[in-house]
Amino acid sequence: MISRNKAALIISLQKKKVRDEEKLFVIEGDKIVKEFLEAKVMVKTLVALPEFLNSLTLFHKQGIDEIIPVNENDLKKISSLKTPHNALAVISMIELTRDQNDLKRELTIALDCVQDPGNLGTIIRSAAWFGIKNIYCSGDCADVYNPKVIQATMGAILHVNVIYISLHDLLKAARDENIKIYGALMEGASIYSYKLGSSGIILLGNESKGISEELLPYITDRIKVPKISEARQGIDSLNVSMAASVILSEFTRGRGRVH
Amino acid sequence: MISRNKAALIISLQKKKVRDEEKLFVIEGDKIVKEFLEAKVMVKTLVALPEFLNSLTLFHKQGIDEIIPVNENDLKKISSLKTPHNALAVISMIELTRDQNDLKRELTIALDCVQDPGNLGTIIRSAAWFGIKNIYCSGDCADVYNPKVIQATMGAILHVNVIYISLHDLLKAARDENIKIYGALMEGASIYSYKLGSSGIILLGNESKGISEELLPYITDRIKVPKISEARQGIDSLNVSMAASVILSEFTRGRGRVH
Repeated sequence: MISRNKAALIISLQKKKVRDEEKLFVIEGDKIVKEFLEAKVMVKTLVALPEFLNSLTLFHKQGIDEIIPVNENDLKKISSLKTPHNALAVISMIELTRDQNDLKRELTIALDCVQDPGNLGTIIRSAAWFGIKNIYCSGDCADVYNPKVIQATMGAILHVNVIYISLHDLLKAARDENIKIYGALMEGASIYSYKLGSSGIILLGNESKGISEELLPYITDRIKVPKISEARQGIDSLNVSMAASVILSEFTRGRGRVH
Repeated sequence: MISRNKAALIISLQKKKVRDEEKLFVIEGDKIVKEFLEAKVMVKTLVALPEFLNSLTLFHKQGIDEIIPVNENDLKKISSLKTPHNALAVISMIELTRDQNDLKRELTIALDCVQDPGNLGTIIRSAAWFGIKNIYCSGDCADVYNPKVIQATMGAILHVNVIYISLHDLLKAARDENIKIYGALMEGASIYSYKLGSSGIILLGNESKGISEELLPYITDRIKVPKISEARQGIDSLNVSMAASVILSEFTRGRGRVH
């Protein structure tokens, strides 16, 4: 049985304001909860069906402060999903260690106003796949602790820092250090022929408006994923998360780290 | 004012069964409705706010059988979206002309049980971007006329044939004609080092189960998007639509059609 107070807290964590105040967020679904436990992330509260709890090993349980068994009905009441999947966990916000020199040495992603939670989540998942450590987001991007974002990352959130920051400040600092800033723009050069470096910032813009006017002057290299189709209409753009994946793939193959 | 019968028909088209019987589907949102009109697709019924109707040119109106002006409230009642966007149109299912030789000459995608509507829609959008003409889907894939799929394609549906078929039959026929069948599999060869052809079928599997056991024997070339990250946990797979985009990008750059 879950107490009313606890249930109310979990539901209130669907709001960004509450998440920020409490420094807590919620993950949902048996798969992702197990991934967090296996990665030794501390779980403050685990609310789950008995069959899920029975499937946990001692190793899993080590990392859990409080376990609350519930039935499907009670789980549904506190879930943000239409069809909850067996388990829900309350977690303290994660702070991964970050190295100030990463910006010089590594490929980094900067997102300007990427508002769709699914897109942000998928970009995090792809970034993790391609070995990216840090993603910088403008304040008007979707919130990384939004349940839909967490869901779409499929656990990759454990391996990528997502940092909210003024992109002005970030890009200005990067420019002062001669770090390359690759902007994904309609009029950019084809990523297939352009010489892509092994470090720098890849800047991607909003789903419909692209990169903000004010950030354009910081861009040192304008790139794009060229359209192959000969169709004139109906194919205006690649989804931003697709563009991110393709661009990361192209940067990565160029770095010769895979074969 | 929209009649009760018409409203009921439009709502019932949210169901696949009704769509298949009536050979009709619904698109929603000012942007996609305009794209369809600009591509000269015939619209059976356009239900829209007065401001949207005022923005239409004579050219747009040529393609519309029936126009029903409504207020926001009435639009909301028939919409499948939480926040409807100005316009909704009922369209007859599209049949694009198809060339039997495409399979030999072109790159084609085959999807085995890709169930998430967002994934299917995004794959269609990427496929259109990379100049793919035909996507074959197993019967248990999401329905291309599902409103969420249509939404995610952003109009790209006008440029790609989506054909539901037994993949057994398709792949058997392809094998008999010596057409290459590239299967995306965890144990495949890296797409960055493998020699990719300029035609053939790219077979992608279900979001969690991958390609069905029964289809594996048809695969002639096993490929994968290699993981760059050194993390052991939490990054099990690339989202299927991301994998599709990256694979298409890699096939396309190899074809030398872009620079």
